[in-house]
Amino acid sequence: MADSAGAPVARAVLQQCLQARLQVEPAREDSEARYVQIDRGMVIYICFFKGATDEILPKMVSTLLNLRLCESPSGKMASVLELPGSVLVVPQATLGGKVKGRAMQYHGNVGKEDGLRLYDTFVALCEKEVNASAAASDANATAVTVKHGTYGNRQVLTLDTNGPYTHLMDF
Amino acid sequence: MADSAGAPVARAVLQQCLQARLQVEPAREDSEARYVQIDRGMVIYICFFKGATDEILPKMVSTLLNLRLCESPSGKMASVLELPGSVLVVPQATLGGKVKGRAMQYHGNVGKEDGLRLYDTFVALCEKEVNASAAASDANATAVTVKHGTYGNRQVLTLDTNGPYTHLMDF
Repeated sequence: MADSAGAPVARAVLQQCLQARLQVEPAREDSEARYVQIDRGMVIYICFFKGATDEILPKMVSTLLNLRLCESPSGKMASVLELPGSVLVVPQATLGGKVKGRAMQYHGNVGKEDGLRLYDTFVALCEKEVNASAAASDANATAVTVKHGTYGNRQVLTLDTNGPYTHLMDF
Repeated sequence: MADSAGAPVARAVLQQCLQARLQVEPAREDSEARYVQIDRGMVIYICFFKGATDEILPKMVSTLLNLRLCESPSGKMASVLELPGSVLVVPQATLGGKVKGRAMQYHGNVGKEDGLRLYDTFVALCEKEVNASAAASDANATAVTVKHGTYGNRQVLTLDTNGPYTHLMDF
């Protein structure tokens, strides 16, 4: 984790949900807004900082999906893979904000092109791990899925929780 | 901020909302669950660490309420006081979690008694600032309010956003 490795290169905020819905395409003149939705699972808000490379992604994804951050039906803590639950990935550049006077600055964030590549790979790795875990598990797991927001867009989000259990994780 | 002052003693995660509803009393045999709700404004998830004292609270509250973290109707960034918007304070001990193997540990969090006192004072200071700002402002501000969760309870939360603009702030 970042504690032992100097300045972080990525930040994730995690919230449990019963249901979460995210806009992936805003309404246009000739089309309605489009949304993705998950039921029980975890929302991962993600932001990459300058210095982030693809090499950190497998460890990040493995950590986030395997940490016991969710409350299982029995009341014990379980990972989102163990639940099994779905994952909604939300790009959230504001997580890189630093206070400057009364405003926030985001100079530490990774550039747009690198950010998009890191985000896409992060989502793909999440899909791979969730699908592999679901395939190896029982029938309960067939409904789990990974959904994600559109990088660079406004993240219009609706969240229903039984307690968000908000966690922060720097990498 | 914590960057210049060593280890943080408090952490806040901030999300913008169009509406947010929080359970303040769970359902019991003889009574239904009770909820509080705000409309447009900001959700403040708050966690105090060991070493936190009442002295940090006025600066914390002033910073959180006066930073331009919200998008105003014109698209410009504005503070929650400037909007004017309401505030929902959510005690969130999970924000103090540190990874230990596959589990989270919360050994860095402040004790329960100190935590409750800090939380109560934090909420009272938020109320004071929001009310003072509303009184000094125009008629639009009369609807703004501060609501808060019950310290130590499960924080059953429903959130509706136009983009959460999730920010992290350590103190």
